[in-house]
Order: sequence, then structure tokens, then C-alpha cells
Amino acid sequence: MKLYEAYAEEIAQSIRAGVMKLGDRLPSVRQASASRGVSPSTVFEAYYLLEARGLIRARERSGYFVAAGAKSQLPEPGRGEQAPSEESGPVDVSALVFDILESAKARDVVPFGSAFPSPLLFPLQRLARSMASSVQSMDPWSSVDDISPGNASLRRQIALRYLADGMHVHTDDIVITNGALEGLNLCLHAVTRPGDAVIVESPAFYGALQALESHGLRAIEVPVHAREGIDLGALATALERHQPKACWLMTNFQNPVGSLMPDQNKQALVELLAAHGVPLIEDDVYGELYFGSRRPLPAKAWDKHGLVLHSSSFSKCLAPGYRVGWTVAGRYTRDVARLKMTRTLSASAPAQAALADYLAKGGYDKHLRQLRHALSAQQGAMLEAVIRHFPKGTRATRPDGGYFLWIELAPGVDALEVHRRALSLGISVAPGPMFSARRSFGNFIRLNYGHPWDARLDAAMATLGRLIAAA
Amino acid sequence: MKLYEAYAEEIAQSIRAGVMKLGDRLPSVRQASASRGVSPSTVFEAYYLLEARGLIRARERSGYFVAAGAKSQLPEPGRGEQAPSEESGPVDVSALVFDILESAKARDVVPFGSAFPSPLLFPLQRLARSMASSVQSMDPWSSVDDISPGNASLRRQIALRYLADGMHVHTDDIVITNGALEGLNLCLHAVTRPGDAVIVESPAFYGALQALESHGLRAIEVPVHAREGIDLGALATALERHQPKACWLMTNFQNPVGSLMPDQNKQALVELLAAHGVPLIEDDVYGELYFGSRRPLPAKAWDKHGLVLHSSSFSKCLAPGYRVGWTVAGRYTRDVARLKMTRTLSASAPAQAALADYLAKGGYDKHLRQLRHALSAQQGAMLEAVIRHFPKGTRATRPDGGYFLWIELAPGVDALEVHRRALSLGISVAPGPMFSARRSFGNFIRLNYGHPWDARLDAAMATLGRLIAAA
Repeated sequence: MKLYEAYAEEIAQSIRAGVMKLGDRLPSVRQASASRGVSPSTVFEAYYLLEARGLIRARERSGYFVAAGAKSQLPEPGRGEQAPSEESGPVDVSALVFDILESAKARDVVPFGSAFPSPLLFPLQRLARSMASSVQSMDPWSSVDDISPGNASLRRQIALRYLADGMHVHTDDIVITNGALEGLNLCLHAVTRPGDAVIVESPAFYGALQALESHGLRAIEVPVHAREGIDLGALATALERHQPKACWLMTNFQNPVGSLMPDQNKQALVELLAAHGVPLIEDDVYGELYFGSRRPLPAKAWDKHGLVLHSSSFSKCLAPGYRVGWTVAGRYTRDVARLKMTRTLSASAPAQAALADYLAKGGYDKHLRQLRHALSAQQGAMLEAVIRHFPKGTRATRPDGGYFLWIELAPGVDALEVHRRALSLGISVAPGPMFSARRSFGNFIRLNYGHPWDARLDAAMATLGRLIAAA
Repeated sequence: MKLYEAYAEEIAQSIRAGVMKLGDRLPSVRQASASRGVSPSTVFEAYYLLEARGLIRARERSGYFVAAGAKSQLPEPGRGEQAPSEESGPVDVSALVFDILESAKARDVVPFGSAFPSPLLFPLQRLARSMASSVQSMDPWSSVDDISPGNASLRRQIALRYLADGMHVHTDDIVITNGALEGLNLCLHAVTRPGDAVIVESPAFYGALQALESHGLRAIEVPVHAREGIDLGALATALERHQPKACWLMTNFQNPVGSLMPDQNKQALVELLAAHGVPLIEDDVYGELYFGSRRPLPAKAWDKHGLVLHSSSFSKCLAPGYRVGWTVAGRYTRDVARLKMTRTLSASAPAQAALADYLAKGGYDKHLRQLRHALSAQQGAMLEAVIRHFPKGTRATRPDGGYFLWIELAPGVDALEVHRRALSLGISVAPGPMFSARRSFGNFIRLNYGHPWDARLDAAMATLGRLIAAA
């Protein structure tokens, strides 16, 4: 841990312990530098880190203050009404999910229900330059060569990023896919047969539920804790009881809950699944969007048996719409690469070349720092709006990354009804039942803070709060 | 029929009837113009059309001559050893196909076994300009808006092309996919359940067999005639006997045979399937690569019940590697669009925008004319090489479009062995068993003439001929 990180952690602890309270002013950089005997830049880096984590907030020309999102003023959401590791049987959630997604697609709808961050947060012009230069100099034969497993330069760049996180992934182990979603679907296909049982989280990313549905699989739902991710005890029970053929989950900033599994849980997860010979399909699309000091490792980092199939993409952190993701599928690499060829042949060659160019020329890490900072600040703003506008008793997560809040409304409030009424007022939300094969979480909603905060969003939160209070 | 088409047809008949023989010189443009009382440009257009069809060939400064490919000097291949409409049960061809494709992937291998035409035949620089300009002016929100069914401008351009062929397809009926291959797979998924029987051609595009295999479907193989496509009598029998849930085939320049179904057969096909309530999955990726005077219609043109699911792409005729195709799925449009979202979300937004720009700004039809002319000339060159270098008794198709010859070797010649030996000499071929769920066509090979002809290719044909003669 570097000096500024240690200093930031010290301040964070005094905030968490209540020594420093909401609105308290922090010492100026000059004061702190003098009193601590550290350089001003160390203080600044510590403050910057705390701001990125949403614990403090700068006010122009008056210094730094403890922010509203700093202390968990909002209680944590519960697990909804669910038994541990319940089997839901065949999944049938797609129609509900599509109806909701399609109803909220119009541009003028306030996008709290959206699955995407604002495209304005991405370096689209810089990517366009990479695209223009790489497509003009592209080898004509790349359309043949870049068929699965994909563009070699891009795979090397991805391998280098794994290496920077301390993971040794060989270029040949990486299969480029049409976004992480394709990779996840291919992995699921590679390790299951129709009728098999698959463990998913409760609540889960609806895309996982739709994948199970379209592959004819049964869902075993295991609860997710708001901070620590999947409940390992319930998972162990489910493994014994249901003989699942796979487990599909998100270890980093789970969608919709935002939980981040601690390292020891990730290790225990990998060992538990390996003991049962069950492959882990790990969806890690939000891993780069951390607010802490370093990228959280995926469970794949503890994989000794090639049983973890790790998928990620550039769609949520760099290049939305390019549809370029990848999978590191361990012992299933060849199966996944071949299945990819039979289904879509390859990802778009120009998009692969443009990303390889962008990653090689640098700028990605700087962009990511700005993006994380923006998301963290937007999280603080949305949490403040929840505190101000939503009824007492509202519970909310405060994730350490990603761009979703998972909100538990009072018992009896119907999230689907909230969704319908909000939409009639031009505001989308993602109602809880979208995230459950058994349509649980009837009084939960997921809110997206991936859009630059402004008065319009704040007003929409006020409207939403009134609507929920009346429900 | 225009005047020059009528004149061309008259000459073609005299060649077929043997009135004009191989090597005969045609009248000069001036002579023909004077003796026929037509304009020189009419004569030139007629000659150009005959050249594009491979019937005549220009020699520099000495006029036009009847070409080697003009008369069917080579007998047509038979159907291989097969009973009509045989059920093959579960399909298990993928490993063989992949082994062959991967073995032939190296750039220095002579690509007679390749599935792709030479990338040098495409306007890659012109496309790069469209990509650069469209990506630099791209609306940031297109990454959200262009999710399935896809980029609206591109879908409008595709609808306009249908309209030019006399087909009324609404923009909303078009779903953009990651190449035709994804569209075909999605259509197959939309109309079948694992264990169902599906009618395919014999021989069939191996991608269709792989799709059946990965979806857990049973193949019913129905023979394809070298000129007229699927045998409608055998198809009627198969429909009665096997209660298939779908029929997947290629009406235009079938892969590997190259057959072009006559219009009346297409109409009868659509009516026959509709009478049984069986959806037709129509793979039309070669439709634009015709050597005749106009684009052959797909069977979709006769669809009155929304039961024909028509898929095509730009991969074989404009933009290899961009991975942009589309599906017009009739009554299954919504199912296919939603399934696409759950599998890969959308096609690459920059690639869609680039193609929309290219199609809008023109140049596509001119490029296609040049491409067809090149392919037709290359077909003539390859047929001449077969005649010169292959053993007597070799049979070969002479398709009116596409870029494949389907070649029947003497009975007892093992095409898989030919493939292995040729590969050891740096030449790839596609052996017949790749194209059959029952590994039939043991003495057939498919040769690709999609590469500009040169001495190296001619020498490779000579090598191949010796190797076959020795087998």
C-alpha cells in the first residue's frame, strides 16, 4: 500500500467510525501536508482517492467535505423473500424483461432503468481516430486471419492487461467474442445440455436468466449478500442438493446488487466448485469500474484446474456498441472457439483492429481513471437524492464500483407498478422481478447512476420518490 | 429482355448447339453491328454479358473467342451414393470440418479449399473511407439505439435493395445480425427444439450441419441436383415421412454444388413447405454473385404466409470481416430479434454505420459488376485447368454464379486422402464428406475459384490433377 493510500484509508476509517461526520470540512492540503509531514501531492492523491470512492466531495474554492454517500445512512437491502438455493425449474422471464427494456428505449426517457452508462463518458473521438487509422492500414487478409479466436494484436493487449493484474493468461487462451454476452452464452452452451440445472444468483443479471431460458436449462437460485456477493453456505447446500452442471455469477460489482466478493470468498468459491467438478462461468464486465485503489481480481485468478470460464468486454468501460469482448475458458477454450465459429464466425474485424490500436497507443488507463471518478461522483449524487427524496425506510446499496444502486422499497410496494407509473411520467426504472427466475424482489428496483448528474436527473428522483411514497 | 440480352442469348444458343465451337472467333463489334443493324454498344454489351457468363473470352487485340468453359465439355457430377431423403440421425460432423478448416488456414496454402473469395476483390479502401467518416460523425447514442433490430439507415438501404428486385420488405422486418451465419442459427433456434428433425440438402453447406449438431437436431438429407437445386419429389417424400420442423437450404448458387433453382421450382418449394406448415430457412449469401443478366430472386419472393426466413449478408460480396448480415424472418421476426439480443445484443455499430454510408453513397452496383465479371472469368480459367490437368472421367459443375466448383472424381478416389496429400504439398481442397451428415460424397471435392487466376494457381491445379490421377 502506497503512502497516499494508507493516509486515505486512515481518513476513511475515521469517517466510518463517525469521528468525522457528514458535512465536516477536511484540513486543507497545505495544513494536512504540514501536520502530517508528507508532501502536498500525497495529500492531494489521498483526497482524490477518497473523492473517487464517494467519501468526500470537493466544493469549489472551499475545500473538501465529508460526503453524503460516505456513511451508510441508508440501511442495506435485505435478500427479499426467498428460501436459500431454491430451484425455479425452467426459466420464463424473457418476455417480461423485453417488454420492460423496449418500453424504456426512447431517448427522452430518464434512463434510471437503463443497463448502460452514458455514451458521453467514453472517448469516442479518440476511438474513432484509432478506427480510421487501423481500417485504412488493415491487411486485407485480416478478414480471414481474424476469424476465431480473433485478432492477435488485440488478444496480446488483453493478455498484457491480465499480466498487469498479476494474472498469467496466454494469448492463445483468449477467444474474442461479440461482447461478453456472446462469450457467456457460448460458455454456457459448452458445459451444459438442455434440461441441466445451473446455479445463478438471486437476484441475477437478467441476461443470465434469458440465457438459461433459451438454452432450456433449469435455474437454481442462490442468494447474494449486498456486500459480499453469493452466499457460500447456501451455494454449498445447492451443490449437494441439485448436482448442477455449471454456476454463472458475477464476482465484481454484481448486477443488480453491486456486491464485491472479498478475495478469500473468491478463493473459497473456486475451491468449492472445483471440489464438485462444477465449471464457473464468471461474468466480469464491471471489474474495471472499481472505486477503490486497485482492480479487484476475478475468481479466475484462483483457478488451478481450468474450470473457471472468465468473460469480459470493452462495452461497459471503453467502446459501447463496438461489440468486442473475450473469454478465457480454461479447459473449454477449444470448444468455445469452435462453437463461436459455428454461431457467428468472428467478431467484427475493424472493431477488433481499432481496439488493438487504442490499447497499444495508451490512454486507456487515463480514461478509466476519469470514468471511475465520474461514476463514483454520480453514485454520491444519486445516493444523496435517495436520502432527500425517497420515503423513510428505503434501503440502498453503496457499491464500491459499477453504476447500479439496488434499492429495497417498503414491503408491499409493487416495483412493477412503480415501473409502469414512472414510465408514464418519462422515467425508467428496472423493477426487481426482472432479476429473478421466480419473479422475486417485488419491492426492489435497480437504479442506474451511469449518467452525468444534472438538475433533470435530480428532479426525476424527486418525482420517483413521491411516486414511491404514494404507492 | 433487352436487345443486347436477346442478342447474347442467340449467340449462347448457337454455342450450346455446337454451331460455334471452342476457339471460334466471334465477329468483331463493327462487323456484328453492321450485319445485325444494331448499335456497336449493343454488340459490346452482349459480348460483355457472354464473357461474364464464361461463354466467350477476350484476347487482347484479337477479339472474342468461344471459351473452354462454354460447352459442357465436362459431364455433370452425379448425386453420390445416396438414397433419397435419408435420415442421418444426430449430426456429428463438426470435428471433421474444423480439423480440415484449421489445417488449411495458413496464408501460403493455395486456397482451393477456402470458403471465402479473395479479399483483394473487395473495395476495402472505399469502405475504409466510409468507416472513417461515419465513425467520426457517429451519434454517441447509436450504441444504445442500434441494438437489435439494428441501425435504421442500414435497414432502410437493405429494404431499398429488396425493392430494386421487386420485393416489398419493410425496414421493420429486417433484423441486422453478425453475418448471415448468426441469422441462420437464430432462425433455426426460433423454429425448432432439440431432438427435432430438420431437412437439409445433400450435399449441404457444412455450417448448416454444424448448426444442427450444436442445436441437437436430426438431419434429413434430400439430394440436390447439379443445376436445379433440391429434388422436389424427394423433398415431398421427406415431408410426409419425417414430419420435420424446418427446412434449411440455399436456392441461389448452392454451396457446394452451385445449383440455381429455377423460379418455378422456388415457387413450388414455398408452396410445398407451406402446405406442410414447415418454415423455410433460406441461406442466400451468394445471390448477388450471379453471372446472368439479373439477380435471381430468393424463394422468399413467393412467401405468402411469413414462413420463409430469408438471411443474407455483405460478407461474400462487399465487406468480408465486417460481420454484418441480416434476416427477414416473416412471422418469426420478433422471436429472432429478441433471441439476437439475448445472444449477442447487436452487431458492431461502427460496421453497421460504415455499410449504411457506403450503400447510400453509391458505388455498390458498380463494384458488384466488377466482382461478378472477375468471378466468372476465374471460373472459366479453373474449368480450363480442370479440363487440361485432371484425369479423364472427372465431372464438374459450371454454376451460373458464386465461386465454387463441385467436382466428382472417379469412383473409389478418396477425397479425404486427396485433401491430406494436397495439403502436404501446400494446396487445400474441401473434401466431399465435409458436406454430408453421413459423410457421403467420398469421391467429391469442392474447389474455390474466388481468387484472381495466376500461374501459381494453374500450377497447383496441375499438381492436384497428378495427385488425383495417382490416387
